[in-house]
Amino acid sequence: MSGWSKTKKSCEVWTIDSGHTQLTQSMGRLVFMTEGLGFYEVTNEIRDWSKSLQLKDGLLTLFIRHTSASITIQENADPTVQQDLQKALANVAPEDGGWLHSYEGPDDMPAHIKTMLTGVSLQIPVVDGELDLGTWQGIYLIEHRKAPHRRSMTLHYLGS
Amino acid sequence: MSGWSKTKKSCEVWTIDSGHTQLTQSMGRLVFMTEGLGFYEVTNEIRDWSKSLQLKDGLLTLFIRHTSASITIQENADPTVQQDLQKALANVAPEDGGWLHSYEGPDDMPAHIKTMLTGVSLQIPVVDGELDLGTWQGIYLIEHRKAPHRRSMTLHYLGS
Amino acid sequence: MSGWSKTKKSCEVWTIDSGHTQLTQSMGRLVFMTEGLGFYEVTNEIRDWSKSLQLKDGLLTLFIRHTSASITIQENADPTVQQDLQKALANVAPEDGGWLHSYEGPDDMPAHIKTMLTGVSLQIPVVDGELDLGTWQGIYLIEHRKAPHRRSMTLHYLGS
Repeated sequence: MSGWSKTKKSCEVWTIDSGHTQLTQSMGRLVFMTEGLGFYEVTNEIRDWSKSLQLKDGLLTLFIRHTSASITIQENADPTVQQDLQKALANVAPEDGGWLHSYEGPDDMPAHIKTMLTGVSLQIPVVDGELDLGTWQGIYLIEHRKAPHRRSMTLHYLGS
Repeated sequence: MSGWSKTKKSCEVWTIDSGHTQLTQSMGRLVFMTEGLGFYEVTNEIRDWSKSLQLKDGLLTLFIRHTSASITIQENADPTVQQDLQKALANVAPEDGGWLHSYEGPDDMPAHIKTMLTGVSLQIPVVDGELDLGTWQGIYLIEHRKAPHRRSMTLHYLGS
Repeated sequence: MSGWSKTKKSCEVWTIDSGHTQLTQSMGRLVFMTEGLGFYEVTNEIRDWSKSLQLKDGLLTLFIRHTSASITIQENADPTVQQDLQKALANVAPEDGGWLHSYEGPDDMPAHIKTMLTGVSLQIPVVDGELDLGTWQGIYLIEHRKAPHRRSMTLHYLGS
């Protein structure tokens, strides 16, 4: 059956000159107040933090310290994308899914499922002082609970 | 339609003093015997390993070397959460999904799908010698096969 | 109800001697031309890049700079596995899902959803110069659009 054993037409290899200076690390924490269910773009806050380090080349790691909020990188040009992403998550984790765990209401367990599927850690390379995001990529904190929450994210930078 | 273009109310920025000592790395491997399908909390084993390194600040990376077992960070207070998470994964990857790949039985292909959706690598910052987990976060190895398996996880620590 | 509070039978701990030489980092970029929807194995290209660095022990990070293509580690022995994985993703993100965002056709929004669920960053430890992949693990670029695309991946290596 054709169409499944895919072959790449080519692979270009580029080298990024990441220097030979000594490596350092920096850590910080960003705390966001959300207004409830939704995608919150945090690209600017993360860029500002990394710019403040005066860094050159390396790797930025994000970690969100929650089980009902997560982080993702997604299209940041059209806001209906986030609306559709939220709908897709609700399809997989509906409030009426017959969940056993519902201490904090019908949005409690769906929030945990959505967090598991979208993840709590993420890496972004930094090249020549800039987050190496693609043209359409933005960084989002996803709040999966209906009520506003205080959400804490730890940042780690390694590089020159 | 309101509710989709979300704005954060505020962003607090905290600095974590991660010192200026020379960076080092350490690697290790943890091997777990599972009893079949289920979520296995491995927070203590991973904490013990990181404590043994006498580390201060840095970044811990976990990598599971399998295609039918994965790792996630989830709520570790109520065991019904894991039961519901497992149900949600079974909804997305049911045994009767008409899968082509079934060499090792009906739980074979669902195990691969669940692994893809939950992931094989994960990072956790380390701050002042402690895993920087949130209050409700525990680290889980998820066994997606029904039979007991030997599962191998590689750990990498970078930091001071 | 038994079967949910899982206990591990044992945990073996192995130490990997990752040396005490000074840490360095290297960065590069791989650009792939895809032929449209499908799983493209890129294990060899990534192994070749890491081999060219003459590295010993450390951590390799992959980051794909797109919102409609992603990276995953999956079974690379039987090609029907990739076919089934693709079917599972199509079940979660069908073209007729009533999505609002459809600028670039019916495969536009499903591509974003599939990218969110499978992820854009990934880590693989390197041990004694070799990618520390398990027996059945291969690295895949997943193209979620029907048309051929040029896809760019940034690589970061930290280690000795």
